[in-house]
Amino acid sequence: MKKTTLCLLLCILPLNILLAQEGYKLWLQYHPVEDAALKKHYTSQNAAISVDHNTPTGSVIREELNTALEAMLELQPNFTSPDKASLLILKQAALPEELQKQLPSNAVQDEEGFTIASLNYTGKPVILITSQTDAGLLYGVFRYLNLLQLHTDTSQLSVTDSPKIKKRILNHWDNLDRTVERGYAGFSIWDWHLLPHLIKEEYIDYARANASVGINGTVLNNVNASAYILQDTYLDKVKALADTFRPYGIQVYLTARFSAPIEIGGLKTADPLNEEVRTWWKEKANAIYKKIPDFGGFLIKANSEGQPGPNNYGRSHVEGANMLAEALEPHNGIVMWRAFVYSDEKPEDRAKQAYSEFVPFDGKFKKNVLVQVKNGPIDFQPREPFHPLFGAMPETPLMMEFQITQEYLGGMSHLVFLPKMYEETLQEDTYARGEGSIVAKVIDGSLNTKKLTGIAGVANIGTARNWTGHPFAQANWYGFGRLAWDPYLKSETIAREWLGMTFTTTPEFIDTMTPLLLNSREAVVNYMTPLGLHHIMAEGHHQGPGPWVKDLGREDWTSVYYHKADRMGIGFDRTSTGSNALAQYAEEIENTYKNKRTIPEDYLLWFHHVAWDYEMKNGQSLWYTLARKYQDGVEDVAQMKKTWNAMQDYVSPAVYEKTRMLLDIQYEEAQWWRNSCLLYFQQLSQMKMPPFIPKAPHSLEYYESIRDPYAPGIKPSWD
Amino acid sequence: MKKTTLCLLLCILPLNILLAQEGYKLWLQYHPVEDAALKKHYTSQNAAISVDHNTPTGSVIREELNTALEAMLELQPNFTSPDKASLLILKQAALPEELQKQLPSNAVQDEEGFTIASLNYTGKPVILITSQTDAGLLYGVFRYLNLLQLHTDTSQLSVTDSPKIKKRILNHWDNLDRTVERGYAGFSIWDWHLLPHLIKEEYIDYARANASVGINGTVLNNVNASAYILQDTYLDKVKALADTFRPYGIQVYLTARFSAPIEIGGLKTADPLNEEVRTWWKEKANAIYKKIPDFGGFLIKANSEGQPGPNNYGRSHVEGANMLAEALEPHNGIVMWRAFVYSDEKPEDRAKQAYSEFVPFDGKFKKNVLVQVKNGPIDFQPREPFHPLFGAMPETPLMMEFQITQEYLGGMSHLVFLPKMYEETLQEDTYARGEGSIVAKVIDGSLNTKKLTGIAGVANIGTARNWTGHPFAQANWYGFGRLAWDPYLKSETIAREWLGMTFTTTPEFIDTMTPLLLNSREAVVNYMTPLGLHHIMAEGHHQGPGPWVKDLGREDWTSVYYHKADRMGIGFDRTSTGSNALAQYAEEIENTYKNKRTIPEDYLLWFHHVAWDYEMKNGQSLWYTLARKYQDGVEDVAQMKKTWNAMQDYVSPAVYEKTRMLLDIQYEEAQWWRNSCLLYFQQLSQMKMPPFIPKAPHSLEYYESIRDPYAPGIKPSWD
Repeated sequence: MKKTTLCLLLCILPLNILLAQEGYKLWLQYHPVEDAALKKHYTSQNAAISVDHNTPTGSVIREELNTALEAMLELQPNFTSPDKASLLILKQAALPEELQKQLPSNAVQDEEGFTIASLNYTGKPVILITSQTDAGLLYGVFRYLNLLQLHTDTSQLSVTDSPKIKKRILNHWDNLDRTVERGYAGFSIWDWHLLPHLIKEEYIDYARANASVGINGTVLNNVNASAYILQDTYLDKVKALADTFRPYGIQVYLTARFSAPIEIGGLKTADPLNEEVRTWWKEKANAIYKKIPDFGGFLIKANSEGQPGPNNYGRSHVEGANMLAEALEPHNGIVMWRAFVYSDEKPEDRAKQAYSEFVPFDGKFKKNVLVQVKNGPIDFQPREPFHPLFGAMPETPLMMEFQITQEYLGGMSHLVFLPKMYEETLQEDTYARGEGSIVAKVIDGSLNTKKLTGIAGVANIGTARNWTGHPFAQANWYGFGRLAWDPYLKSETIAREWLGMTFTTTPEFIDTMTPLLLNSREAVVNYMTPLGLHHIMAEGHHQGPGPWVKDLGREDWTSVYYHKADRMGIGFDRTSTGSNALAQYAEEIENTYKNKRTIPEDYLLWFHHVAWDYEMKNGQSLWYTLARKYQDGVEDVAQMKKTWNAMQDYVSPAVYEKTRMLLDIQYEEAQWWRNSCLLYFQQLSQMKMPPFIPKAPHSLEYYESIRDPYAPGIKPSWD
Repeated sequence: MKKTTLCLLLCILPLNILLAQEGYKLWLQYHPVEDAALKKHYTSQNAAISVDHNTPTGSVIREELNTALEAMLELQPNFTSPDKASLLILKQAALPEELQKQLPSNAVQDEEGFTIASLNYTGKPVILITSQTDAGLLYGVFRYLNLLQLHTDTSQLSVTDSPKIKKRILNHWDNLDRTVERGYAGFSIWDWHLLPHLIKEEYIDYARANASVGINGTVLNNVNASAYILQDTYLDKVKALADTFRPYGIQVYLTARFSAPIEIGGLKTADPLNEEVRTWWKEKANAIYKKIPDFGGFLIKANSEGQPGPNNYGRSHVEGANMLAEALEPHNGIVMWRAFVYSDEKPEDRAKQAYSEFVPFDGKFKKNVLVQVKNGPIDFQPREPFHPLFGAMPETPLMMEFQITQEYLGGMSHLVFLPKMYEETLQEDTYARGEGSIVAKVIDGSLNTKKLTGIAGVANIGTARNWTGHPFAQANWYGFGRLAWDPYLKSETIAREWLGMTFTTTPEFIDTMTPLLLNSREAVVNYMTPLGLHHIMAEGHHQGPGPWVKDLGREDWTSVYYHKADRMGIGFDRTSTGSNALAQYAEEIENTYKNKRTIPEDYLLWFHHVAWDYEMKNGQSLWYTLARKYQDGVEDVAQMKKTWNAMQDYVSPAVYEKTRMLLDIQYEEAQWWRNSCLLYFQQLSQMKMPPFIPKAPHSLEYYESIRDPYAPGIKPSWD
C-alpha cells in the first residue's frame, strides 16, 4: 500500500478508531507546530542535518529525526555533510576545530552527557549537538526534540547536561508465564514464547521511550525469580532483546535466583562458599557474556519473603553478593543486591530490619556491588519517611528503588503523579554529613564520592494498548526516567514537560493540569493513609482499605500491627519508648521526630502512638483531624473530576472519556477508603463522627466482608 | 484537538507507528475505493440515506455508515427522509406500499434475515435494506458494506439472506483473573476490575466485529468456571457488558459452575433434585434477568476433567441440565450442556464415551436445552472424523462446538486457516436419514426440523493489539462467524472475502493467497498428525510434538494411548476387533471404514492399527507414506514462506514483517515435528528413513527432553 493512499485513508477515518492509537505513542506524540513563525524558524534550523548514521545508534537518531520533524514540521530533512548542515550532530572527537573552540566552557566531559549549542560554522549559524559517545548523542537529540515539542525558543541554545546517576534502570516484575506481579497494565510485554524469532514493534518503541528520558538499563524478570531464564534457550531470547535495545543505549539485566545452581545446574547446594557453586556462576556469567557482551548484571532478592539466599547456608548477604560479583567482575557486570529483607526469626519492627542487617556490612561488598534500597523502610506506601539506610552506609554504593507501578497507590484506576512523591524522598535530609546531606546526594554519589551509582524503578508497563493502562500512569514512567537522570529536578518541571509533550502546550491546559498532578499525591495519602498511617491496605493484593486485617501468617503482614489502634489511640511508637526505629536516623531527625509537638504531622502516626483526643496543631483532636484528612482526600478527588471536566477541549475524546470514567472509580474508591477506615477507627476511638463526614452507605461489617480474589497484579494461587 | 489537525498529524507520521494500528480494525478496514468510476457510482448511491436512528441499533447503523463511507468514499452521507434518500434502511413494518410490492418474492420472513434490493421509489432508483428486526437491519447494512468493500457491482442488487442457525456464539475460556485457558493472544479482554465503570473502546469494537459477521452471543467466562461470576458484584459487571453489546444484537451468556449453590450460596449440596438447590438456581436466574432482561443463558461443563456435576450426587446429565433449564425457562433462557465428558471410572475408548453417555438421553432434555458437541470425538485435533453424536440424537438439538483458538494447531505462531477444517466437518455425511444427511443439516435443524439451533466457537481473542496475535488468526474468527451464519458456505468464499476486506481486492493477491489459506490446514495435519494420527502433542500445553508422552495420571491423556505404535505397526483399532467405536457411526460409514482398503487414508490410523510395511494406495509402505506426509507438511510451509515473500507489495510493512517472522517459526516447528515424530516412530518400526527425509539435527533423546513450563495458554499451576 502506498503511503499517500494510507494518508488518504487515515484522514477520513473516524476519530474514535484513530485515537485509540494515541496512547501508544506516549510522550513522543510530536504534535504539529501550528504557530507559523515558529514552524518557519524550526524548519530553517532543521532542514539540513549532518549525522553519522553508519553506527546503529546513528541510524536510530536519523530515524527519530525523520519521524519527529515530519510530524511536527512536515519536514523531510536533508541529511548532508557538516559544512552544508544547519543542525550538526557530531561526536566530540569528530568536531572540526572551528566548532571545538566555540564550545561553552561547561561543555560536558561525562560519557553520556551532551551539549546543545547555537554556534557558527563556515560563516553561518548552526545548532550543534555533541557528546563523547553515541548514547550521549542520542540523549542530546531527544532533549533537542523535547525542546521543539515544548515550543522552546531555540535561537540561542546553550544546554549542557549529563546524567547524575550511572545506572538508570527499570525493574520488570514480569514472570516467564507473562503475568506481572503488581502489574496493572495487562500481560508482560516480553513475548518469551515467540522470542528470539519474533521481534515486535513494541520492543523498539519501548526502547525509544526509555532512551528519550535517559533510562539505560532494564531488568527483564521478576525479583521473585525463576531460575529457568538462566537456561541456554532463554538466554537466546534475552540476547534477542539485548540486540534490539543496544542501539538505544539500553543494557539488559536479569534477576538471578540464588538457588539456580541447584535448580538448573544439578548441584546439591547453592552455598556461596562452595567451590562448585562459585564455578557454576562463573561459567554461567561467561556463557551469558558470550551471547551478550554488554550484559548489565544481576539483580538479587535473597532471603526475603521466601526467596532463597546465602542465609540458607549460614552465609551472609556479603558472602552471597560477593560470590556473584566475582563471577561478573571480569565482564564489568554489576550486582544489585536488594536490602528489602525481613526475617521470620527476628520479631523486630520490620522498619528496622534492613538497617540492622546491612549497616554492619558497610564497606565489605566488592566494588561492583550496589545495595538496592526501597525509598522507605516498609514497602512503597503512599508516604514513608526515607529509608534509614540512606546515609548510614557511606562505604557502600546505595541504589534507590522506587515503585512506578501503583501497588499501594490505587492500582489500575487512581490518578497519582508519583514524581511528586519521589521528589519528597530525594529531597529529605539524612544529615549524614551535616545539614544538606539529602537523599539525592547519597544516590548520585556526591555525598561520599561514589562512582558507581544507580536508581531503579519498578515498571508499570504492560501489554495495555497505551502501555500503562491509566493514561496518566505514563507520567510516572516519564517522571521516573527524568529523576533518574537528574534527581534534583522539580516535580513541577516534570509535570509541565509531560503534559506539554503528551497533550498540548496550550498554557490554559498546562497551568490547570499541573496543580492537579502535583496535588494528586497528597490526595491519595489523605484518603488512604493520612498523618503517617501505613500498610492498612487489603490483604495480599493491597487494593482497597483493610485496616481490620489481622491474624495472618505473620504479624507484620497485618494492618493492626502497623496502625496499633486501640481504645486509647493510634500509631506505631517507634521512639525510644517503642521499637526505637527512630534511633536509626541522624540525631537531628531523632531530636525533632521524637517529640509529638515537633515531628512533622505527616509522620506523626509513623513514629508515635497518639491519643485520640490529642490536640493537633490545628487546635482540633487527632480523631477530628484524621477524619478531616480523609474528607480532604475525597474532596480533592471531587476537585480533580471537576477540573478534568473542563479539559474536554484540550484532549482527544478517547482520553477524555477514559480518564473521566477512571476518575469516577477513583472518587468512589476514595469514599470507600474514608467510610471504611473511619468506621473501623471509630469503634475504637468511640468518638463522634465530625459533621463534615457524610453517613456511610454501608456498615463496617459490610466493608470488612468485601473480598476480591481476582484483583489484578497477583497470581491466583497467592489468594 | 481538531480533526483537521489530527489528519495533518497523521499524514506525516511514519508508517511503522500507524500500521501497528491496522490490525486492530480487523476485516473492517474500509480501504478507500480507488477506481474513480466505481467510487462515483458508490457515492451517488450512498449520498442520501434514510435510517431510523432513534433506536440504539439505528444509531449504531448510522455511525457505521458514517465510518465506512467516509473511509471508502470520502463521503459524509446526508441522513434524510425516505423520499429524498438513495439508500433506504427500513424495517418491513415501516415500508411504504410502493416499496413493499416491489420486494422480491423470496424476501425474508426470518427475524434476523434481511433483503438488500435495487428498487424504484418516488420515481427514482434506490437501494433498500429491509428486515423485520433491528438486528436484521444491522446485518443487512454490514453485508451491504462488505459488498462495497469487495468492490461488488451494486447496480442491480437482490440479496436475501438469513442466518441458518439461531444461536451463533463465541465461547471465551477467560478466567476472572484475566488469564485465558488455551489463549494465545494475551490477557482476557474483559477488564473485570474496572467494570462496570470503565467501558473500553475495545468492547464496542469487539461488538462491531461480531455483528459484522452475524455472531449474536458471547459466553464471557471459561467452561472451567469460577462460581464467583454469579455473585451480585460481578453480575453488575456482566450487565455493563450486556448493555454495551445489546445494540449490536449480541446476547451475553455465562458459564455456570454446577457447585455454585455450595460455593456462593452457602448450601450443603448442589444435588439437582434438592429443592433448596432448585430454588437457589431459580432465584439466581431471576436476579440475573432483573439486571439483564435479554440474558442468553448458561453454558455448563459438568462431570468432565474434574468439574462438578450431577453425577456427584448420583444424578444424570438430564437431571442436571433440566434443573437449570427450568430456572431459565420463564425468561426464555437456554442451557448449553457440553457433551465433552469422559469419566475416570469407565476405561472405555475416550472417543466412544460421549456417545455412550448421551444417546440414551435423547428426547429427555427440556425444550430449552442444547447439547453442545465438539466437532470430533476426541479433542479439537488437526483432523478428526465428525463426532458420532451428530445424527444420533434426532430428538435433541445438538450444538456444534468448534475451537477457533489453536490449542492443538500451532498456538500463537502457526498460520492455519480453520474454516477449511470446519467446512470438512460440516460437509461430512452422517447418513442419519440416508445419504446427504450432512453434519450441517444436523446443526441447522433441517434434518430433524429443530427450531432451537446453535453453534459455538472457542474464541481466539485477547488483549493483543490486533486481537488475535497472529495477523492471520483474524481469519478464523471471521470464518467461524460466516459459517455460523451459513454452514453451507465454501471455505474458499470465506478466504476471498476476508483477504479482500482485510488487505486488498487486487486479484493477484487474492488469487495467490486463497490457495495458501486453503492448503494451510492440510499442511498442519501433515507435519503434525498425518493419516489419522491424533493427540500426540506435548503434555498439558499441547505445543509441539510429544508422541513419547506416557505414564500420566490417566492413560487417555497420553500419546501412546492414541497412536499405539509398536514394533508391528501403528494406529488405534476402533473397528470390531478393537474398541469398536466405529459402530457408533451409520452402517454406510462403518462398512467403508472397517476395511483398511476402503477407508479414506486420512482416517486410516484413527480407526486401524496398521503394519509398518502395509502397502498404501500409492504402492509404498505405510512407514514410507507416513514419512512422506511429514515431509510434505514441511515443504508446504516452505512454499507458504515463498509465496508470502512475493506478497510484500500488497500488505503493510508491519504485517509483512510480522507474518514473515511467524512463518519462520512455523517452518522451524514443522521440522521439529517431522524430525522428532519420525525418530520416535522409527525406533519402533525399525525401518529405514526414506531418502527425502533430511538427517535430524538432534537425537530423539534431545527432542524428548524439551520442556516448556511457561508455554502460553495454561496456568503455571497446571504444569
